[in-house]
Amino acid sequence: MSLWRSRSDRSHGAGPSRRSLLTAAGAGGLGVAAGALGHSVAANAAPRMALVSDVVPFYGEHQAGIDTQAQDRMHMAAFDVTATGREELIALLTEWTAAIEQMTRGAEVGQDGATGGDYEAPPEDTGEAIDLSASNLTVTVGFGRSLFTDGRKARFDLGGKLPEALISMPHFPGDFLEEARSGGDIVVQACADDPQVAVHAVRNLARIAFGRARVRWSQIGFGRTSSTSATQKTPRNLFGFKDGTANIMSEDGAALSEHVWVKGAQGPEAWMNGGSYLVARRIRMHIETWDRSPLGDQERIIGRTKRGGAPLSGGDEFTEPDFEMPGRGGPVMPVDSHVAIAHPRVNGGVRMLRRGFNYTDGSDGLGRLDAGLFFIAFVVDPRTHYVPMQNAMAKNDALSEYLRHTGSGLFAVPPGVQPGGYLGQGLFEL
Amino acid sequence: MSLWRSRSDRSHGAGPSRRSLLTAAGAGGLGVAAGALGHSVAANAAPRMALVSDVVPFYGEHQAGIDTQAQDRMHMAAFDVTATGREELIALLTEWTAAIEQMTRGAEVGQDGATGGDYEAPPEDTGEAIDLSASNLTVTVGFGRSLFTDGRKARFDLGGKLPEALISMPHFPGDFLEEARSGGDIVVQACADDPQVAVHAVRNLARIAFGRARVRWSQIGFGRTSSTSATQKTPRNLFGFKDGTANIMSEDGAALSEHVWVKGAQGPEAWMNGGSYLVARRIRMHIETWDRSPLGDQERIIGRTKRGGAPLSGGDEFTEPDFEMPGRGGPVMPVDSHVAIAHPRVNGGVRMLRRGFNYTDGSDGLGRLDAGLFFIAFVVDPRTHYVPMQNAMAKNDALSEYLRHTGSGLFAVPPGVQPGGYLGQGLFEL
Repeated sequence: MSLWRSRSDRSHGAGPSRRSLLTAAGAGGLGVAAGALGHSVAANAAPRMALVSDVVPFYGEHQAGIDTQAQDRMHMAAFDVTATGREELIALLTEWTAAIEQMTRGAEVGQDGATGGDYEAPPEDTGEAIDLSASNLTVTVGFGRSLFTDGRKARFDLGGKLPEALISMPHFPGDFLEEARSGGDIVVQACADDPQVAVHAVRNLARIAFGRARVRWSQIGFGRTSSTSATQKTPRNLFGFKDGTANIMSEDGAALSEHVWVKGAQGPEAWMNGGSYLVARRIRMHIETWDRSPLGDQERIIGRTKRGGAPLSGGDEFTEPDFEMPGRGGPVMPVDSHVAIAHPRVNGGVRMLRRGFNYTDGSDGLGRLDAGLFFIAFVVDPRTHYVPMQNAMAKNDALSEYLRHTGSGLFAVPPGVQPGGYLGQGLFEL
Repeated sequence: MSLWRSRSDRSHGAGPSRRSLLTAAGAGGLGVAAGALGHSVAANAAPRMALVSDVVPFYGEHQAGIDTQAQDRMHMAAFDVTATGREELIALLTEWTAAIEQMTRGAEVGQDGATGGDYEAPPEDTGEAIDLSASNLTVTVGFGRSLFTDGRKARFDLGGKLPEALISMPHFPGDFLEEARSGGDIVVQACADDPQVAVHAVRNLARIAFGRARVRWSQIGFGRTSSTSATQKTPRNLFGFKDGTANIMSEDGAALSEHVWVKGAQGPEAWMNGGSYLVARRIRMHIETWDRSPLGDQERIIGRTKRGGAPLSGGDEFTEPDFEMPGRGGPVMPVDSHVAIAHPRVNGGVRMLRRGFNYTDGSDGLGRLDAGLFFIAFVVDPRTHYVPMQNAMAKNDALSEYLRHTGSGLFAVPPGVQPGGYLGQGLFEL
């Protein structure tokens, strides 16, 4: 028997199972609303009894927050590590692991939580999530290239452990990256159905890190631009189009195995087995320009109908596009449409697990909304599964004219944790 | 019979009522979760059938979004009007009224919506809310002092209509206001249970305004820092404390009448009858400093217990504080505690309808979260109901040390609209 339990085998902890709770609530006939009810408990004023479980198990072969059904809200933060010693870094990761495990099951951080312990000492938990449920919180941690090397010499004796896939991301055509929105030694992706729960997670991890790591950048996202489960309806991005129709779904174990999870890595990279690589790109959309484009142009740029999301070659949202079908003056699917450029057939068959969120960060000095897509993808290797496609898109995709990449990050996401272990343990001990 | 229908008399439009839908869903036994279910339909992957109505009626004596049960998310935007003619301003408000009425019942903007009409023309609706329900969207519009006068001469022939209560807000101790986050000719407060619905509303209004008004600032908020209904649990602010225990509830008609709604205004101010004044303050919290304060200090600064929200003089959350109860070296309720300073007994009995939201706008250059409270209050007169209290708080409140006001706005919110009318009509025609 494997030491690892698969995600589907994970217990729901000490709490009653989703099924038994639904039955207890006498709401068996509303089975389709199970996830919905869980969400309601989190986000509304009704008594916060655990009508259904909204806890995503923390322990497992893989970290949660990758093949987890996408939650409604995200708070991502990248940290620069200021600690200089290896033991200090391990201590930080160990403390974070304990806190993440507590927060993901809806508990308060520390032994005494928000209000216990010494009245004349700062509380261990900041308290703003006291009455909130777990809200399907997941916290996913990854390591940036700068954690391993400062460009000249190794940091934390980790030089030999730097995976080849954790590249310095090349410059892509059209990049307008801001240093203050890019990079970072460690990334934390907190997702939950309640934004206050996600913010609480990042804030408490930042607090634990005080003196050892500090926030380099952080980003709030909402909505789901990418569906990650066959049970979720495809959400829309801020261009008004469905986004993520061809995404890898969490039910598709074969695609996850082929395109997302690292496996069979040897020697100094063995610590990444069961992990993945997280690509983050802050993509500002020129929505004012887009909004003044004719519907026909918009659909030809995307390659899909706006309302239904069907390819312009016909069918419905999930019909495979016909790139040969003739239209007026060329294929009915324009060769520079987003769908044509991003399709696996022209990208060596590679696919990504996208898990992005829309964002709106107020407005800029010109009265334009600073809004767009915070793109997140998990891939087995960014050299094969991100860089070629992004090069093709930046060069040829008609959509690129409406986009500006303002932030970028690439992180090696280690595998999941078993009880007694800590996040990234293999990096130090394997 | 009055020409106005009270809010409680409003019909739910053409859709089935909340009650009939609940019954139809066979979920009568889950009555407590009615609002919750509505939310779920909006934010989750379940089929978006109208299980329950989540439409807040647009027409009425007052604008919606004031005494409406607080939604989960907010997008507020202030506009500078670039149109110079009175007729152009009226046309903008008329077009906005039509679009707001459509969006608040979950419809797309315009005659042809997101995908109808001329294929070679820009769509009338931007489309990102196509599959989303109304999500209890409310859009509330108010006018800033700068719409009436540029400081020397009247704009839009509105000089004589400037209400005396629409003052230039005085400078308060500790203000660090940023020009780019303050003021504005017109404010739009969009609230919904789904952030994408709120963002869609502001974006489409900005689009309609193109060439006539442009966004000066905008702000995204989440959570509810202030409960506005007795059926809602008191939410927590980012200090981890319950906030809004003593707020005016939407069920409290007498308090609304006394402290929120303008009535009996004569002559040039008659257009404000049925309206209110909106005070907006972006209050950044020094949460890193707060988080390092002992629990005892935090509770003495607020005047309440952190977990239960009871006053330090005892009882539970809703127990009236006893400001005379002796403690060690002074009253058990510190005289400079937030509760003591903000209490109506020392503020001439005035109360506010608060409707604020937490915000997090990433982090600053020093690795600190730019987070806090976007304070919103509706009051009958800011001269009596906001300025004195804010002066007292800024000068004496122990909490002020942890706060920095970075944005400010004051807006005259006209009354509601009847079919055929437009927002602010009385301003031009009374």
